[in-house]
Amino acid sequence: MPDPRVDFQTRPSRYRHWRLACDGPVATLTMDVDEQAGLVPGYELKLNSYDLGVDIELYDAVQRLRFEHPGVRAVVLTSGKEKVFCAGANIRMLAAAPHPWKVNFCKFTNETRNGIEDATAHSGQTWLAAVNGTASGGGYELALACDYIMLIDDRSSAVALPELPLLGVLPGTGGLTRVTDKRHVRRDLADYFATRPEGLAGQKAVQWRLVDEAVPRATWPQAVADRAAEFAARSPRPADTKGIELTPLDKTRTDTRIGYPHVTADLDHDRGVAEITVTGPDAAAPGKTAMHEQGAAFWTLAMTRELDDLVLDLRANELELGTLVFRTRGDQANVLAHDRLLLDNRDDWLASEILHYLKRTLKRLDVTSRSLVALIEPGSCFAGSLLELALAADRSYQLAGLPADAADQEEATITVGPMNLGPLPMGNALTRMATRYLGDGKGLAAVEERLGEPLQAGEAERLGLVTFAPDDLDWEDEVRIALEERASFSPDALSGLEANYRFAGPETIETKIFGRLTAWQNWIFTRPNASGPDGALRRFGTGQRATFDRKRV
Amino acid sequence: MPDPRVDFQTRPSRYRHWRLACDGPVATLTMDVDEQAGLVPGYELKLNSYDLGVDIELYDAVQRLRFEHPGVRAVVLTSGKEKVFCAGANIRMLAAAPHPWKVNFCKFTNETRNGIEDATAHSGQTWLAAVNGTASGGGYELALACDYIMLIDDRSSAVALPELPLLGVLPGTGGLTRVTDKRHVRRDLADYFATRPEGLAGQKAVQWRLVDEAVPRATWPQAVADRAAEFAARSPRPADTKGIELTPLDKTRTDTRIGYPHVTADLDHDRGVAEITVTGPDAAAPGKTAMHEQGAAFWTLAMTRELDDLVLDLRANELELGTLVFRTRGDQANVLAHDRLLLDNRDDWLASEILHYLKRTLKRLDVTSRSLVALIEPGSCFAGSLLELALAADRSYQLAGLPADAADQEEATITVGPMNLGPLPMGNALTRMATRYLGDGKGLAAVEERLGEPLQAGEAERLGLVTFAPDDLDWEDEVRIALEERASFSPDALSGLEANYRFAGPETIETKIFGRLTAWQNWIFTRPNASGPDGALRRFGTGQRATFDRKRV
Repeated sequence: MPDPRVDFQTRPSRYRHWRLACDGPVATLTMDVDEQAGLVPGYELKLNSYDLGVDIELYDAVQRLRFEHPGVRAVVLTSGKEKVFCAGANIRMLAAAPHPWKVNFCKFTNETRNGIEDATAHSGQTWLAAVNGTASGGGYELALACDYIMLIDDRSSAVALPELPLLGVLPGTGGLTRVTDKRHVRRDLADYFATRPEGLAGQKAVQWRLVDEAVPRATWPQAVADRAAEFAARSPRPADTKGIELTPLDKTRTDTRIGYPHVTADLDHDRGVAEITVTGPDAAAPGKTAMHEQGAAFWTLAMTRELDDLVLDLRANELELGTLVFRTRGDQANVLAHDRLLLDNRDDWLASEILHYLKRTLKRLDVTSRSLVALIEPGSCFAGSLLELALAADRSYQLAGLPADAADQEEATITVGPMNLGPLPMGNALTRMATRYLGDGKGLAAVEERLGEPLQAGEAERLGLVTFAPDDLDWEDEVRIALEERASFSPDALSGLEANYRFAGPETIETKIFGRLTAWQNWIFTRPNASGPDGALRRFGTGQRATFDRKRV
Repeated sequence: MPDPRVDFQTRPSRYRHWRLACDGPVATLTMDVDEQAGLVPGYELKLNSYDLGVDIELYDAVQRLRFEHPGVRAVVLTSGKEKVFCAGANIRMLAAAPHPWKVNFCKFTNETRNGIEDATAHSGQTWLAAVNGTASGGGYELALACDYIMLIDDRSSAVALPELPLLGVLPGTGGLTRVTDKRHVRRDLADYFATRPEGLAGQKAVQWRLVDEAVPRATWPQAVADRAAEFAARSPRPADTKGIELTPLDKTRTDTRIGYPHVTADLDHDRGVAEITVTGPDAAAPGKTAMHEQGAAFWTLAMTRELDDLVLDLRANELELGTLVFRTRGDQANVLAHDRLLLDNRDDWLASEILHYLKRTLKRLDVTSRSLVALIEPGSCFAGSLLELALAADRSYQLAGLPADAADQEEATITVGPMNLGPLPMGNALTRMATRYLGDGKGLAAVEERLGEPLQAGEAERLGLVTFAPDDLDWEDEVRIALEERASFSPDALSGLEANYRFAGPETIETKIFGRLTAWQNWIFTRPNASGPDGALRRFGTGQRATFDRKRV
């Protein structure tokens, strides 16, 4: 389906579906989808329904609000259409899309909605859904990602999750999880609600906690403005901030290579491997003021943006590259100095934004259905923030000693930094380090004692920081065999295995969405009752009812 | 596949695959599968591999150990075969089985393994896996359900999870979850382990925490006996106990009815509904001594056994009955008196066992992929333990007022008892009541204040204890429409919806197994890479490698 390739980069001047207007501390993001501007031919985006292209713009807006408009303290999400807030994911698009496209689409939209919640929680930018028409399915799920939901009370507008009765699939973009676990709608009422295609409106929707407020049309504009002003007033965001510009990425893309200044990927389709190299900063960290001046060119931010775009590109456009191999190049001290600058200035809005963006990007890696392997070789800089790549990996290999032809180099080391011990939690609310040492407090304490110390392969392996530490004699074969083997396994079973192992320990709303909810939706999407020729998803809108195999599984 | 119907009742004298031997405080359960005694024709149960029939006997043994052998304080699970502990689920059975059979089989085996952990945790019967040969796949997962794993160190025996490399599916009977979350195997080592068909053995298996102890053949018998004696010595189980006999169930079964003394189900295949009625005790509770004398005839135990068997029967044999409707008949005071007897005597082994069994049976209902509806009418006894049926339901309806032709009856009420506020947690470790009022402490407190008070429909609805409270004018239509509607929805989407809504709030190892892990496995089972003609599951043992669609999803 992605032909030409999906491009995740955009900017407000190119938006087809959204209008972003900032007015002092309040921004208004208006959804006004261009029916004719679907990402792929074959469907019209009626009733503010969305496809991946619409969501790419939404993601861009969420990011720009945080970096370019730090003075914004409340974001009103509303619709530019009459009587319709948003009809959710476009059904014809879903019905026609192959399974991997559906799954990738749902994953990205989930990440964007989690990003909205992250902005509310960590950027002092509270998102407020001003539902000025019916919000149905993914439309209501979009509202659910906001901290506060206002519904216009006009005898026509409602909120609804009609996926079950109309389409035979789940509200899979967090809907089922957020209704019970975030909004605390009682589970039997939630059940009833999810069987009513027409949804619920007015005071009943308020009573059932589906929305926070139902407002008559006459007082709607004022009520929305009042509420936005209240949220803005409560924001801890400093008032006198000047944003930085998220300049276009300097990206080159061919069939076999994706290149940016700090990140490159060589795409080996025969082996099913993307060989990714992340380059560390080429100088010590600047001061806080210089970081603001550098803006998008500041190493951590630049590298994170490139990595984010790369992961999205590979996910959407390179379905058969099943393994991502991560290497790094550069100076560990420079990486750790950049980390320190950010951590020493966490009360600075930009430093804070960069940290949270790095956190979100690493989370995107965690839910990426590709095997992740880290190769730690001489000249690499797996320290602090870049060590997270090795900790996120399903396996890591660190070369012990030196190759015979490189006896003058320094042995490969890794260094644990403060960045590994708190600021970058996974979706399960634990750090990758804590997840790694789950139930092994002694192991974790032993690692924490070595903070800041470069660790050679033997020691890193003994501490449990890397999986294997082969020497030069074994390195090439061991790595080659591991990658060949990975490529020989069932891609589906690998996705399932990794989705389980990566999230040891506690579950959160976020991991429940990517684990429990998404896995059920993936299953339902593959079933003839949804996607078969007589399934509900394919028959929707044809006037014919779906034919179901009635066996309960 | 189930032809004739699957029967879940058995007893030790009929076992084909297990030997149960009790020697004072230590029981030994020996797996010695009869290759020729598969439940369904078409496969041989080689190498101690198992099918549903083998697991039905295991479940029976777990239950009888708790009720019939309360003096047992440690259970040694071992193999009667040379060099093989257990090869896991039989592959030819899995390859040939239709999807619902696979899913049902995995669910039941998961429940039985959870039951083993429940016995260790709550009955002072610690299970110890004496792995005296290779434990592979489901064989190792069976060992993982035990509290302690001993592996014979003989240069041939190993533990392994070869599902991914050999079969293209997951170790789906809790394996992936227990390795990381219970045994705290580091996730990258766990990844490596799950790619090695031959597994790991000896001290390396100990170092990686896959087993607790590796013991040379020479000292094996003594080491097993010593360890069992140690666990038995630590058990809080009283020594001078006399078991009760789990007598055969008095069950009648036709195509349209399943009947037991306290539970009946009318099977309406046209409407896709099983109408279940649970009858309360016909007298006040006996004393503790009389309870022991009554044994399996004691109401709570008898009713629980019948309900347990009924749910298993419906799951395996009535795939198209998508909705289970629960009614009760009887006297609330008698139900509450039986509850009180059990709760007042929680330090009595039998009372404790009955409580835990009721807990497990209600959990079985929670993970049953059928819509659950409770109908609360005059003459019903939804109080305490039986109110749990309404709290487990996806929806409940309580009749407000009385029908015109029954003006002399008493209005339907429900009564919250102490049984609803603690002793019967769900898999998420919360009570059904706490899950219902998740995030609503005030709502829960208001309910707790009404403890012991019969609540009519209006009040129960206002408190949030029932979903709807229609009066006689609306009752019949409202219930009929709800059931018809349920039958019209996609069965798959309903399973996914219910699996999400029923487990609001925290996740545990148990809910992760039934939610995250099982959902991924269900998905993988439906994919051509596993179950297609060229898939790994179908090609296993043919000498041909599987052909994979390499797209990662």
